[in-house]
Amino acid sequence: MTQTAAIIGGGVIGGGWAARFLLNGWDVRVFDPDPEAARKIGDVLANARRSLPGLLDVALPPEGQLSFHDTIAEAVTGAIWIQESVPERLQIKHDSFAAIQRACDPRAVIGSSTSGFKPSQLQQNAQDRGQILVCHPFNPVYLLPLVEVVSTAQNPSELIETAKGILSRVGMHPLHLKKEIDAHVADRFLEAVWREALWLVKDGIATTEEIDDAIRYGFGIRWAQMGLFETYRVAGGEAGMKHFMAQFGPALQWPWTKLMDVPEFTEELVDLIAGQSDAQSGHHTIRELERIRDNNLVAMMRALKTQDWGAGALLGAQEKAIRQGSELGQTAGDIRDPAAPVLTVHRAVPLDWTDYNGHMNEAKYLQAFGDATDRFMELIGCDAAYIASGGSYFTAETHIRHIDEVNAGALIEIRTRVLGGGGKKMHLWHEMYEGARLLATGEHFLLHVSLETRRACDASPALDAALRRFADAQADLSPPDGAGRSIGAPR
Amino acid sequence: MTQTAAIIGGGVIGGGWAARFLLNGWDVRVFDPDPEAARKIGDVLANARRSLPGLLDVALPPEGQLSFHDTIAEAVTGAIWIQESVPERLQIKHDSFAAIQRACDPRAVIGSSTSGFKPSQLQQNAQDRGQILVCHPFNPVYLLPLVEVVSTAQNPSELIETAKGILSRVGMHPLHLKKEIDAHVADRFLEAVWREALWLVKDGIATTEEIDDAIRYGFGIRWAQMGLFETYRVAGGEAGMKHFMAQFGPALQWPWTKLMDVPEFTEELVDLIAGQSDAQSGHHTIRELERIRDNNLVAMMRALKTQDWGAGALLGAQEKAIRQGSELGQTAGDIRDPAAPVLTVHRAVPLDWTDYNGHMNEAKYLQAFGDATDRFMELIGCDAAYIASGGSYFTAETHIRHIDEVNAGALIEIRTRVLGGGGKKMHLWHEMYEGARLLATGEHFLLHVSLETRRACDASPALDAALRRFADAQADLSPPDGAGRSIGAPR
Repeated sequence: MTQTAAIIGGGVIGGGWAARFLLNGWDVRVFDPDPEAARKIGDVLANARRSLPGLLDVALPPEGQLSFHDTIAEAVTGAIWIQESVPERLQIKHDSFAAIQRACDPRAVIGSSTSGFKPSQLQQNAQDRGQILVCHPFNPVYLLPLVEVVSTAQNPSELIETAKGILSRVGMHPLHLKKEIDAHVADRFLEAVWREALWLVKDGIATTEEIDDAIRYGFGIRWAQMGLFETYRVAGGEAGMKHFMAQFGPALQWPWTKLMDVPEFTEELVDLIAGQSDAQSGHHTIRELERIRDNNLVAMMRALKTQDWGAGALLGAQEKAIRQGSELGQTAGDIRDPAAPVLTVHRAVPLDWTDYNGHMNEAKYLQAFGDATDRFMELIGCDAAYIASGGSYFTAETHIRHIDEVNAGALIEIRTRVLGGGGKKMHLWHEMYEGARLLATGEHFLLHVSLETRRACDASPALDAALRRFADAQADLSPPDGAGRSIGAPR
Repeated sequence: MTQTAAIIGGGVIGGGWAARFLLNGWDVRVFDPDPEAARKIGDVLANARRSLPGLLDVALPPEGQLSFHDTIAEAVTGAIWIQESVPERLQIKHDSFAAIQRACDPRAVIGSSTSGFKPSQLQQNAQDRGQILVCHPFNPVYLLPLVEVVSTAQNPSELIETAKGILSRVGMHPLHLKKEIDAHVADRFLEAVWREALWLVKDGIATTEEIDDAIRYGFGIRWAQMGLFETYRVAGGEAGMKHFMAQFGPALQWPWTKLMDVPEFTEELVDLIAGQSDAQSGHHTIRELERIRDNNLVAMMRALKTQDWGAGALLGAQEKAIRQGSELGQTAGDIRDPAAPVLTVHRAVPLDWTDYNGHMNEAKYLQAFGDATDRFMELIGCDAAYIASGGSYFTAETHIRHIDEVNAGALIEIRTRVLGGGGKKMHLWHEMYEGARLLATGEHFLLHVSLETRRACDASPALDAALRRFADAQADLSPPDGAGRSIGAPR
């Protein structure tokens, strides 16, 4: 059954939450008194629709329904998740919680996007303190997985577990903090760096662009995958973390930061920074920068996914959860009609699969067909465990016909037929569709190999039997159009 | 002519410098009194050899010669770059510079890897102050492009420009700081975050793993591509940077960091952190973590390269410089014998092109063949300008034969023949080799299209003529083995 989230307060953060829930198949009900709220959320949603669906190598559930409501009471009706993203003033927060709790399901989670207030402050005077906790996300909320979950002793542990489960299912990483503290964890680092950066600009040591380069060409890339401590653990080398700290510890007494001082936030400093920022980035509009940022984030997070690491490992886990229970999670035994083509890929075309022609790059057709082959192999029992035991299939020959173009964001499906197989051989036929539109066909001849000798050898009896079940059932079907074709042969 | 760098002081940083110069084709002469120096540099070099060569989509020059020397005087002989990475004690630095300057070429650049000392401190008492400047790199030096170049008024501007030029040619980004300051720029941020992180662990707010997650699932990924200020510019939205600062400025007065306080570096704190770090990362050895880190960095930097952004844009620029002047930078007019197959790809197999079988993934064969097609298109005049004018070639059909495996790091070449072409059509044949070993063939049939109508149409007369020159010259050659084959046909 479709689940419902209420978004109280739109803007960039509320809009990002709305987009994440919607694109993960939730219905979303929005309350925001701003007459521009629908347009603003629409802008965020447009960015999310172009970047999020293709982030995973499996399709998300169909998009939910988005609706706007005139009152908080109406917005929270039927919602099991209520996300508060109103301005950072405690009285406004308290008033919002009061209105929410007069109308909402008492079992619903009420998450606050606050970056500064502690949950105990938010819970003051609430009708049910236990329902409210901090769920602080990071912009763009539809792409970045981090959400800081901060609770108090007032929150029942079941509610906290429910909240963490829901956040995980919509692709986030709930970082549950043990103790409440001003600004939680991540923003304390941002604040420390921001202060130091203001000094460096004010003192004329570096411009905003030079500071950004100092971050993105160096430790920024390190932190994107390992964070601070694991990076230092590696830097410490074989001597270990203690050795690293012995080296680096004394630096705490050195004058390396403007620790004792806060720069005065004068109009002059604001103008200096705004001017440098214009010189650095002013040739791009904010909309362009948003899309550049999202393209970069998608490309890097998908790169980490190939390494099953960091934010990429989170994508892999979400993907696995989506596959389970779907047609892509079936075992061979679940398939009643082995004569029917098998669904092997169901996904959106990701942003990083398109080229200068604006359409899916030719190599990505083979990537998708390769994924289809992998899924079919898994289905017949050539899975990670089988491969670890020393056998696999290697592709010997591939023939692709590009029938029609497809663009980023399109939902594609691949259905797979077995043209022959048994012993060492497997001959597969993939058809890629967007809806009823045939995009491409892939014909592949594979050989079963021993990973030790790197030579062809027969598949295991169980694997052979599973493959033959499909091959035999499909043997009498008429051959697909284009199979066995060579380049240059008349159609 | 091969150029020579001298590395004074090995270890992780000196070894990283040695690897970067060597793999960019420089001869490298090392002085390090540590009897373990050769082994330690060998370890770093092994990591660099598996990750750096494939980072670009073009081969680096052949590796230079590595030699070890018993004295500084011998090590600096013939060197035009001398990199000092000795321990961070000023007297050791001064003694090293004195020994270097007694023997070195007076025109050589002497760069110091110091993370803490200012260049004016390093230059004290030097025979030639103007030759010494700070060139502070980031670990792993062979992959991360950032190097902080800090000069004083003593450094001639020609020397500074020479230094920046050399650093750029070995793939680094010289960030030239206008004023010297303790710890330069990037380490001031690291120090600010480190202090805050120590507090959070000490106060029991978060563990080392939770802090790393707070970084790598959130702002770390943002910073890896845009840094601090550009990220905030985007967050400010249409209202701009001034609006953003007006919102965020007051937070400077809030208690969001432990500004006034430095945590005491007790044995208890060290044990707490080392213990948490073991729990977080102890299931990997340091060697494993280094390789995981390098895999991640390569994958993310290459992802940014596809977006021509940040560290990826630097890779693109280095690649362009390497192509120019090589066979891959030729124009059609440079090619005297159009009957000979054309070199279209010359590169190392990057780390992120291999799969669970440990060899190059099947889709990457088509990626490489697609790159070969792009290069051939560029050669005959179907370049970025032509494509911007509204015409291009789309691949209609592809046939790949996988003949042999290839692993990450292998140097591969693709040579391209024209089997036919003219009007709307282009029929290409690619052969991929590692040395004399044939790895795969790719046969491709392409159609020239109008990017407006998305339909096939004749190529421009100039493009057509350039293509026919190759097609006609190659028409009488015997067809390559495997051309026109269909899957399942007998060999």
